[in-house]
Amino acid sequence: MTTDTGRAAGPVDATGSPHAVLRTLPAGAVAVEGGIWAKRQAINREAALPHGFRMLQQAGNLDNLRLAAGGATEGYRGPVFMDSDVYKWIEAAAFELARRPDPELEALIERAIDAIEPAQQPDGYLNSYYTVAEPGRRWTDFGHGHELYCAGHLFQAAVAHHRATGSARLLDVARRFADHIDRTFGPGKRPAVPGHPEVETALVELYRETGERRYLALAGFLLDGRGHGWLGPSRRYGSSAYFQDRVPVREASEVEGHAVRALYLTAGVADVYLETGERALLDALERQWHDMVARKLYLTGGVGSRHLAEAFGKPYELPNELAYCETCAAIASILWCWRMLLMTGEARFADLAERTLYNAVLSGVSLDGQFYFYVNPLADDGEPEHLHRGGPSRKPWHDVACCPPNVMRLVASLGHYLATRDDHGLQLHQYGAARIAVDLPTAGPVAVRVESAYPWDGRVRIAVEEDGSGPWTLSLRLPAWSEETGVAVNGEPSDAAPDGRGYLRLERVWTEGDVVDVAFSMRPRLIEAHPRIESTRGCLAIERGPLVYCLEQQDQQAPLSDLEIDPAVPLTAAWEPDLLDGVAVVRGSGFTVDRAAWAGRLYRPYQPGETAPKRRVDLTAIPAYAWANRGPNAMRVWIPRG
Amino acid sequence: MTTDTGRAAGPVDATGSPHAVLRTLPAGAVAVEGGIWAKRQAINREAALPHGFRMLQQAGNLDNLRLAAGGATEGYRGPVFMDSDVYKWIEAAAFELARRPDPELEALIERAIDAIEPAQQPDGYLNSYYTVAEPGRRWTDFGHGHELYCAGHLFQAAVAHHRATGSARLLDVARRFADHIDRTFGPGKRPAVPGHPEVETALVELYRETGERRYLALAGFLLDGRGHGWLGPSRRYGSSAYFQDRVPVREASEVEGHAVRALYLTAGVADVYLETGERALLDALERQWHDMVARKLYLTGGVGSRHLAEAFGKPYELPNELAYCETCAAIASILWCWRMLLMTGEARFADLAERTLYNAVLSGVSLDGQFYFYVNPLADDGEPEHLHRGGPSRKPWHDVACCPPNVMRLVASLGHYLATRDDHGLQLHQYGAARIAVDLPTAGPVAVRVESAYPWDGRVRIAVEEDGSGPWTLSLRLPAWSEETGVAVNGEPSDAAPDGRGYLRLERVWTEGDVVDVAFSMRPRLIEAHPRIESTRGCLAIERGPLVYCLEQQDQQAPLSDLEIDPAVPLTAAWEPDLLDGVAVVRGSGFTVDRAAWAGRLYRPYQPGETAPKRRVDLTAIPAYAWANRGPNAMRVWIPRG
Repeated sequence: MTTDTGRAAGPVDATGSPHAVLRTLPAGAVAVEGGIWAKRQAINREAALPHGFRMLQQAGNLDNLRLAAGGATEGYRGPVFMDSDVYKWIEAAAFELARRPDPELEALIERAIDAIEPAQQPDGYLNSYYTVAEPGRRWTDFGHGHELYCAGHLFQAAVAHHRATGSARLLDVARRFADHIDRTFGPGKRPAVPGHPEVETALVELYRETGERRYLALAGFLLDGRGHGWLGPSRRYGSSAYFQDRVPVREASEVEGHAVRALYLTAGVADVYLETGERALLDALERQWHDMVARKLYLTGGVGSRHLAEAFGKPYELPNELAYCETCAAIASILWCWRMLLMTGEARFADLAERTLYNAVLSGVSLDGQFYFYVNPLADDGEPEHLHRGGPSRKPWHDVACCPPNVMRLVASLGHYLATRDDHGLQLHQYGAARIAVDLPTAGPVAVRVESAYPWDGRVRIAVEEDGSGPWTLSLRLPAWSEETGVAVNGEPSDAAPDGRGYLRLERVWTEGDVVDVAFSMRPRLIEAHPRIESTRGCLAIERGPLVYCLEQQDQQAPLSDLEIDPAVPLTAAWEPDLLDGVAVVRGSGFTVDRAAWAGRLYRPYQPGETAPKRRVDLTAIPAYAWANRGPNAMRVWIPRG
Repeated sequence: MTTDTGRAAGPVDATGSPHAVLRTLPAGAVAVEGGIWAKRQAINREAALPHGFRMLQQAGNLDNLRLAAGGATEGYRGPVFMDSDVYKWIEAAAFELARRPDPELEALIERAIDAIEPAQQPDGYLNSYYTVAEPGRRWTDFGHGHELYCAGHLFQAAVAHHRATGSARLLDVARRFADHIDRTFGPGKRPAVPGHPEVETALVELYRETGERRYLALAGFLLDGRGHGWLGPSRRYGSSAYFQDRVPVREASEVEGHAVRALYLTAGVADVYLETGERALLDALERQWHDMVARKLYLTGGVGSRHLAEAFGKPYELPNELAYCETCAAIASILWCWRMLLMTGEARFADLAERTLYNAVLSGVSLDGQFYFYVNPLADDGEPEHLHRGGPSRKPWHDVACCPPNVMRLVASLGHYLATRDDHGLQLHQYGAARIAVDLPTAGPVAVRVESAYPWDGRVRIAVEEDGSGPWTLSLRLPAWSEETGVAVNGEPSDAAPDGRGYLRLERVWTEGDVVDVAFSMRPRLIEAHPRIESTRGCLAIERGPLVYCLEQQDQQAPLSDLEIDPAVPLTAAWEPDLLDGVAVVRGSGFTVDRAAWAGRLYRPYQPGETAPKRRVDLTAIPAYAWANRGPNAMRVWIPRG
C-alpha cells in the first residue's frame, strides 16, 4: 500500500514549504496501531467527540450561530469566542474522519456546518457574537474581541474538513471570510493586530491548502503590526505584554504575557518562516525558545505560571500549587515545537513536544475522555477550592471551553506528529505502535511498522515492510531523557553515533523484513530543579521514560503533605494492568514526618539540632497525567528530599 | 494635665462598649513623642497628606464629587469607589488635626467637604459614581458597586472629623446618608449585602458617636444577610466566597476570598460583638483567627496570597515572589486585631498587630511618604515587570488608590493603638516614646512617660508622672518574640509572672517618679517556617525585635539569587544612623553558590554526590519594610540555608 497520495493530512502541510528541513507526511501515511495513543484516540472518537457535541448544544455555541443566521440581536450566550469551540470540535472530528470513515461523526459535522454556513453575512463576515450581541461594533475591540481568533479556528477547521472529506463546503465559507478580512485589513487598508493570535498560523495553512498567496501576505501583515503599542494596554491586565504587543516579533527575546496567546503567536511566526525563510523570524523564535526552556518551563512541559492573566511569569517563577499550566498552553507549545522541528530538524523540539504531550496535555483530560482540567497544577491539597483555582476535580465542560475541543483536535491528529520525511529518508520523532508508509523522492515507497509498549516499555522494534529502491535513511530520535540507548539492526548492535541534531541515522539499502531494535533506558529517575525556583527547593521528582510521576494521596501510607523521599533507596517500576487503564507505577521509599510540633503555628525560631520524628514508609508514584481519576485527591510531583 | 475629657479619639471609641474588656483612651491621652513613629507621623503630616490631596485633585476624585453636585451625567473618572479615597484622606487628616491644630490642613479638609456636601442628593444619597456615571442605577450592583463601602468610609471620616474638630458639618452629611440607607434597607424593607464590607464597622462607630441605635441595628442586619448566596457568585471571580457570602458570619471558620473584604468584615463583626456580646460572633471570629494565623499568614503579618481576586489562598499557600499582601489587607488585619484585643485583652492580638504594622504596612510606603506599594511580596528579582505584578518600584499613586490614604489614616492614628485602660489600670500594648495620661475609675488621673529607642533598642523605661490615688495596675505586653524579658521597678528586679493573657501586671501604689525598666531580648533570630509551605522550604529568615529583615541586593557581595545563609555563624546587629533614615542592620555569614552547572536548563537528573562550588560571603540584612528605597533592587526575606 502506498499512501503518499499528495493530499496533506494533519494540521500542518509543510510538504511544499520551501524552508522546511523536514516534511510532514500525507493523509493516511501514519496509522496509530496500539498502546496508549490508540486507546486515547478510540476514547476521543467514541466518548469525547459525542460528549463535546452535546456540550456545544447545551452551552449555546450552535444556538449562537443559528441566532446570527436568523438575524437575532439578543439571546447570545457565553463569552465572545464561543464560535471557536465549534470550529475546534469540527477540526477534531475531521481529523478523526481522516483516520477512518464514520458516517455518524460526519453527520454531526454537517449539522455543525449547517449552523455555521447561514451565519455568514453577505460580505463574508462571520462571528455570532458581533452579529447578535454587538451588531454594528465589528472590528472595534482588537484586544479582547477575538474576531480574528475565531476566524483562525474557522480556517483550520475548514482546512481539516477539506483534507478529510474532499468537501469544499466549509472551506468556501472560510475563504469568503478570509477574503473579507483581506479586503478590510492590510497595507493601504485598515491596520489590525489580533489581540489573541491564532489567525496567523491559520492563514498560512489556508494559503497552503488553497495556494492563495494573499493569505500568507496577510499573515505577515498581521505579524508586522505587533510591538508598536497599537493595541494599547490590556484593559483587563494593564499591559501590552499581555497580548504580545510590547515588542515587534523580530525583536522578541522572551515568552511573555498570556501563555496561549504567546505560543499561538510563535507558531504563527514559525509558519511564516517555513514559507519565507526570513532569518530574523527564526532568530527571534530561538531566543524565545531559550527563554522558555531555561527560565519558564514546568517539569511537565506545562507553561504559564500565573492565574492572573493566565500568563508566563518572571524567570524562575514556577509555583507548583499555583501553577496555571492551562491545557491549551501545553497544546500551543506542542504546535510551536512541531513547527520548530520542521524548521530545524532538531530533536530538542520533539523532546519537549513529547514531555508536554504526556505530562501537560494528557493530564487535562480524564481517562474516560469526558472530564477536563483547565488548569494543571503540579501539586494540590485535594481539598475543595472555595474561590477560583479549580480544585482537584475535572469538569465536564468549562464556561470558557477552549481546552476540551483543543485536547480533542490534538488527540485526533496525533499521528501527524510521529514522523516526517526528507529527501533521503524517514524520521521517527515519537514512539509507539504504528505503521508508517511514505513515498521517498529517492527511494520510492517505503513502509515501516513500529511495535512497542512505549511509554511503559523502552523497547521499540521497527520492521521494514516496504523497502523502496536503493539506500535510504531511517532516523531515530534519541530522547534526551534516555541515559543510554541500545540499537541493533537485524540483531547486530549498531555503532552509529548520534548526529548533531539528536538523531541516530541508519542509512542502508533496506530489505523487507529488516528489523531495528531500539532499547531506551526505562530506569526510574530522580530529578532536581534549578535552585532559583522557590517551589522545588529541597525536592525531587520522579520520571520514567517520557513520563513525569506524582504521588497521589490514595496510594500512600501517610498524609501526602508529611512525606519525604529517600533518594538512597533505588526506585523500581511495576506494570499494573488494572490500575488507571494500565500504568507502570514507580515505587520508592521515604519517610512520614511528625508535624505535631507545628500545631497551630506557621513560624518558629530555628532549632538547628531538632529533627522531627520520622517513620519509614513506602512511596508509590503514578504517572502525573493520571491523577484525579479516582475522585478528589491530594497530589504532588515534587517531593521533599528526606 | 488630665486629658480624659470624655471625647473619644482614634477610629474606635469603645469607652462605652459593654463587651469591651479593655477600653480605648480618649483624645489627647496618648502623645507619640519620638522614634520611628514620631518620624512617620511627621512625614505623614508634612509630605504624605499634602501629596495625597494633590493626587485626589489630579486623579479626579474631587472633580467627580463636583460633577455630582452640578448634576452632570458624564465626565466621571476612575473606578466606582473613587469617593472612598477622599473620605479616607479626610479621616487621616482629621486624626492629624486631633494630634495638633493645623489651619492649613484644616483648610484642605474644608475644601474636600466643600466638594462632598453639595454632592449629597436631597434624599441623603451620596455617591458620585452612581450619580454621574450611572444615574438611575443606584443599589443595583451590591457585589461590585461599592456604594455601601463608600458610605462606610464617609461615616468613618465624619466621625473622625467630629472628634477632631467638634464640627458636625461632615457628620450631618453622614447621618443623612445613614438615615437614607436605614430607610431603604432592613427588616421589612429591602435586603442588602455589601459586596465590599466596611459599612458595618463604620455604622457601629457612627452609633457610638451619635448614640443612634438604629445604626447598630442596621450593621447587624447587614451581617445577618450574609452567607445565603444573596449576592450570587462574583461575576469577576466566579464565587460567593470572594465576598464572604458563602457561609453565614456565625458559621464562618475560615478567612477566605478577597483579603481586605474578609478582614473589614471580621472587624465589623467584632464591633457588633463589642456592643451586643453575642457569643456566636466571638466564636466565629476565633475560628477565623486561628485559620489565619495557623494556615494563611505571611511572616511579615501580610495576608492575601493570590494576585487573582486579591484573595486568601488555600492553607499553606504562601508564595514569596507571588505574595499579594496588599497594604490595605495588612491594615485591615490591624483593625481586626485591635478589636479582638479590646474584646479579649489577649496579647496575641497586639503581637500580630505589631508584626503587621512594622512589616506589612510600613513596607507599603516609602521613607519620604510619597511612594506606595499596593503589593508587598517577600521576594523580588528586582527586574521590571512587563505584565502586572507591580515590580520593585513604589508608585506615587495607583489607579485603584485605596492603599495610600489607608496608610495615611493608620499612621495618623497610631497613638490610638498604644494603650488601653480598664477599671484597674493602664495597659501598654505597643512600645515607643510616648506620654500616656488617663483618668482611671479607681485611681483617678494617672500619667506615664515611655522612653525608648524601640524597635531598635529593647530597653523601655516607663516613668510615672502622675500617680493617682491608691493602687492601680500597669500592664505590659510581653511580646511573643522576646525570648527573655527583664523587668525592674525602681531598679529592683520584678518577679511578677506573666498573666494568662500575655501581660505582665504590676500592681502597686505608684508614686510620681517611680520608674519601670523593661528589657526585651533584641538578639537577632533565625526563623523557620512550617514545612508544608512550599516557598520557604529549606530557608531561614532573620528577625530582630518586632522587625522582619530582608537581604536587598545592593548590600550583598554576590547575586542575591545565589546566596545561602550559614546558621552556624551568629548574627550581629549594628545601628546605622545614616542608612535608610536610621536602621539597625543585621550581619551574618553565608555562601554564594556557583550556578554554572545549571546554565541553560531548569531540570536535571539528581546528582547526590555533587555539590556546587561555594564561596563564603558576608550577608547584610535591613528591615524588610525599608527595601526599595534605594532604587529598584532584588530582595528576599527567606534565604536558603547553606
